[in-house]
Amino acid sequence: MKNLFADIPENLRDELFETLLQARGFRIERIVSRGHCSPAGFWYDQDENEWVILLKGSAGLRFKGQEEVFVLNPGTYLHIDKHIRHRVEWTDPNQETIWLAVHYRDLDAQSNPI
Amino acid sequence: MKNLFADIPENLRDELFETLLQARGFRIERIVSRGHCSPAGFWYDQDENEWVILLKGSAGLRFKGQEEVFVLNPGTYLHIDKHIRHRVEWTDPNQETIWLAVHYRDLDAQSNPI
Repeated sequence: MKNLFADIPENLRDELFETLLQARGFRIERIVSRGHCSPAGFWYDQDENEWVILLKGSAGLRFKGQEEVFVLNPGTYLHIDKHIRHRVEWTDPNQETIWLAVHYRDLDAQSNPI
Repeated sequence: MKNLFADIPENLRDELFETLLQARGFRIERIVSRGHCSPAGFWYDQDENEWVILLKGSAGLRFKGQEEVFVLNPGTYLHIDKHIRHRVEWTDPNQETIWLAVHYRDLDAQSNPI
């Protein structure tokens, strides 16, 4: 039994990515940011779908082709389809921002038969 | 974009179970309790594995054959293997207890080839 909000390193030069569970077809990951954001001009373009929830701190998320920056607060969750390009414009500089992300391949067996 | 801590019904006669994402091989669920606990003598005995995190409130969890009641606070997460019998002894009577559960079949493709 562990705590998602514990075991945060003092020194967070880079964002921290940790796999909490690796299972068949999906993976649960904890991400810890502290003022980090995506590099200028960088867009995530992922091969897997992502269901993500922000649980501490806050962040600004932008999708390619849109001007709006969506503000995520504790509890905000969203789905990012694979290859939907997006970037983290900012995260709270004064505290950790903690995310829980579920990366996975296929929506369901019906639409993706073996 | 939704919030896990929002849209809580005033009236929570029964625990609230909502599927947030149904994907291939797993399902993400929100559970809202308010003082609920497992019925006397009842033990969960699930066909699927469960990764679960408590995110608001608190709860007491017990495993069959053990006396100890494990107290879960916000951020506490644990893995419950399928068919490990367990029960919720109590949840906070004064506020909602909100859980996020990931139910899934197989640990990984290597140990469970198609």
